[in-house]
Amino acid sequence: MDEDEEQRRRLKLEEALEIQSLRRIVSAYLNYPDASEEDVRRYERSYKKLPPAHKDLLSHYPLKFQRLRRCISMNSHFIFSMLQAFEPPFDMSQDIDASGDSHTEHAQEDHLFCQANNACSCEADPVRITCSDQHGCMEGSNDTCRSPGQVYANKEVDNKSHNQSNAGSHPLSSVPSKESEEYGGSAITDSNGNVSSSAQHCSDPSFQLYVPLVDVDKVRCIIRNIVRDWASEGKNERDQCYTPILEELNTLFPNRSKESPPACLVPGAGLGRLALEISRLGFISQGNEFSYYMMICSSFILNNSQTTDEWTIYPWIHSNCNSLSDNDQLRPVSIPDIHPASAGITEGFSMCGGDFVEVYSDSSQAGTWDAVVTCFFLDTAHNIVEYIEIISKILKDGGVWINMGPLLYHFADMYGQEDEMSIELSLEDVKKVALQYGFEFEKERTIETTYTTNPKSMMQNHYFAAFWTMRKKSATVQVPSE
Amino acid sequence: MDEDEEQRRRLKLEEALEIQSLRRIVSAYLNYPDASEEDVRRYERSYKKLPPAHKDLLSHYPLKFQRLRRCISMNSHFIFSMLQAFEPPFDMSQDIDASGDSHTEHAQEDHLFCQANNACSCEADPVRITCSDQHGCMEGSNDTCRSPGQVYANKEVDNKSHNQSNAGSHPLSSVPSKESEEYGGSAITDSNGNVSSSAQHCSDPSFQLYVPLVDVDKVRCIIRNIVRDWASEGKNERDQCYTPILEELNTLFPNRSKESPPACLVPGAGLGRLALEISRLGFISQGNEFSYYMMICSSFILNNSQTTDEWTIYPWIHSNCNSLSDNDQLRPVSIPDIHPASAGITEGFSMCGGDFVEVYSDSSQAGTWDAVVTCFFLDTAHNIVEYIEIISKILKDGGVWINMGPLLYHFADMYGQEDEMSIELSLEDVKKVALQYGFEFEKERTIETTYTTNPKSMMQNHYFAAFWTMRKKSATVQVPSE
Repeated sequence: MDEDEEQRRRLKLEEALEIQSLRRIVSAYLNYPDASEEDVRRYERSYKKLPPAHKDLLSHYPLKFQRLRRCISMNSHFIFSMLQAFEPPFDMSQDIDASGDSHTEHAQEDHLFCQANNACSCEADPVRITCSDQHGCMEGSNDTCRSPGQVYANKEVDNKSHNQSNAGSHPLSSVPSKESEEYGGSAITDSNGNVSSSAQHCSDPSFQLYVPLVDVDKVRCIIRNIVRDWASEGKNERDQCYTPILEELNTLFPNRSKESPPACLVPGAGLGRLALEISRLGFISQGNEFSYYMMICSSFILNNSQTTDEWTIYPWIHSNCNSLSDNDQLRPVSIPDIHPASAGITEGFSMCGGDFVEVYSDSSQAGTWDAVVTCFFLDTAHNIVEYIEIISKILKDGGVWINMGPLLYHFADMYGQEDEMSIELSLEDVKKVALQYGFEFEKERTIETTYTTNPKSMMQNHYFAAFWTMRKKSATVQVPSE
Repeated sequence: MDEDEEQRRRLKLEEALEIQSLRRIVSAYLNYPDASEEDVRRYERSYKKLPPAHKDLLSHYPLKFQRLRRCISMNSHFIFSMLQAFEPPFDMSQDIDASGDSHTEHAQEDHLFCQANNACSCEADPVRITCSDQHGCMEGSNDTCRSPGQVYANKEVDNKSHNQSNAGSHPLSSVPSKESEEYGGSAITDSNGNVSSSAQHCSDPSFQLYVPLVDVDKVRCIIRNIVRDWASEGKNERDQCYTPILEELNTLFPNRSKESPPACLVPGAGLGRLALEISRLGFISQGNEFSYYMMICSSFILNNSQTTDEWTIYPWIHSNCNSLSDNDQLRPVSIPDIHPASAGITEGFSMCGGDFVEVYSDSSQAGTWDAVVTCFFLDTAHNIVEYIEIISKILKDGGVWINMGPLLYHFADMYGQEDEMSIELSLEDVKKVALQYGFEFEKERTIETTYTTNPKSMMQNHYFAAFWTMRKKSATVQVPSE
């Protein structure tokens, strides 16, 4: 009875912290117009400091600023529509006095609640999909030695799904700021110039939190990820990354039947396109994703899209660097390139929110998957050995693991943070560890690819990604025990 | 007389601030062993947290840590030798109570002293060269969305050369820390295992300053820059960046004579290789560089190298990310690939320290150069229009401007900083501005290249750099007046 009480209190605390975490993410999304407007003002201040002769040479700049504001307004319209469609898994209006101490956020960042024993609470409805960024992004605009860098002031908060009471589902209103009303007079308008219903003030002032810059960067990251997964302009990147995986699955499972389709898990599913494509191939396909930033957006695109090219966004406006022309920087991108609901998703498609280790360590997951596909995922681990161990455990004997990606360990070089565990193996060592966990190589090659890159930028980060297919040998093999 | 007094006081203040700035840079260099050791300790802490079964799989790790420490020790040996050879332009031991207020550093960062009217104080001795990173670097190990990012917490302090009293030139001693003596028992040894004379404690405790992480990153950046400019492993990058420039100069100045060689300026000269190669072609060649980090290193390589492959450094040890194998990460690089003193430098080779705008705005510079070569330099401007204007002014009529580089504006997106001016033009606009300043295009193309990239890394940042040759039309052309 005491244990029950303890358990209840722990669950309550967890939920309170999750609400706090989700509020922070919603606030970051809501802050998008203000943060973007602040950028434009910074550009304006620089322009105003120019000597008159230089200003004359750049007389088209005030017009550029006006155009930028219109683009921001269109992006905001999309974001607010997405938030309005989002049904949070908690009653977001409830009081959150989670821990009572000031280290709450810190505690979340330290994965205080990783012990919670809640396996995958995924929905399996092929169209209604609940969703969850390991690969956050930076604007790609600056460094001081021409080599890519790191931003890890904060990391995303833990947001695993719960066996949750969806009580009090509370659609979010948007909070356009005072500034947003000044955007060239056309606050939040859609492509037809109609003022969106999202342009109403949110009644809940608690969303008007202080939003750290890293959170703002994550929103911009999502916008770039949308191009990768859901725009025609992202096709080249998808062809580089997803097509080899899809071809491999197609070859490895030649005689898959509708009656008992093979089951494929995609950890680090991001905005869901790869998992959707695997479903279209006739697999039971489950995407797993850790980030609510991603979850909110993928759910919107998967579940709420009415038609192709429904939305126009301006993903490249947030950097003035490495642009060939202002028109390139301000070019629109239409999304989605396909209508997910009529894209041939097959039965058993799901998106599952939560931390891969927590969700798939559950004993119910052992030996249940025919295939695991990891694309730009392995390096999101604190302990990559643990990831490999889990992948091995959840695969059936004879099951396949297809991997594609670099080794840009997410917790490497986290200066100034609490001491986060980060095991950073070379590719050679990753492969050795995989062999120890009962895998054998079937294929291996290197694929050159980009990730959320602006295809017209003068600077593009290239990955020489490891691509492999490994097969889990039968259970006779001795896997090191823990 | 009052004005004289005022002037004297200002110069004194400037010098005090320069000393402070140089002390900070020397401290960053001296901090290299400690900062690197701290990284290894972080790796060790993560390793110790592994469950026993995982630790068993990585039983070679303790040996890797030992190897890392030996590499750090070798790098430290190089750095300390460089610092010992460095002759600072000031008496570094003098008291510095520069401004008396706590905002000194801030003031430096704000270019308080940009008004100082000191033109180029360069030495022209072809072998004895005084030197001065716009393109700082990051370890390239991490971000959260696969696109390169920015680090601009601090920027380098202003370090223009002075009409300086080289009084009390004071060779610096090194400060190996207590930790350095623990490095596998082989503290600061050269490749023959001899303990270097640099392993003596510095008598000046003021160099044991707190060293911010951005400064540590700049030291690592320099190590990568050495590969770009002075190692065989950097040849591919030099062939991409420098060879097209050298070929163009060779073609444009076919009949250059020893008696009156054409004069070529290289702003943003970095570690000096490009300027040296231009000198070898028979040009009067002057490199201009803003950063003391770069100056100290280029001076050492240019003036103190005894032979090729004199030093062994380990440039790739500072990131565990995107490595194919530990051996790749720990591979040595020999420097320099050529012996500068016997490399065929021709008369009039110099390196000039200081801010490009300050040094070359001086009226004495007008119309003095036959060629200006900008390689990864234009985007270091606060105001790129000003750079273009100055390049136009200092060229003779009919002189040529060869440019190669992206537009990764260094002062873009400097969140959290004082409001730094940053004018970020698209390539199209840069070219329009150049036309306005009297240039006409002779050649234009795009060159794909890297910058200080580890050629064996799974992640490489690619630049689609603009390459052009423009000619300054004769003076009849109307250039917009200021």
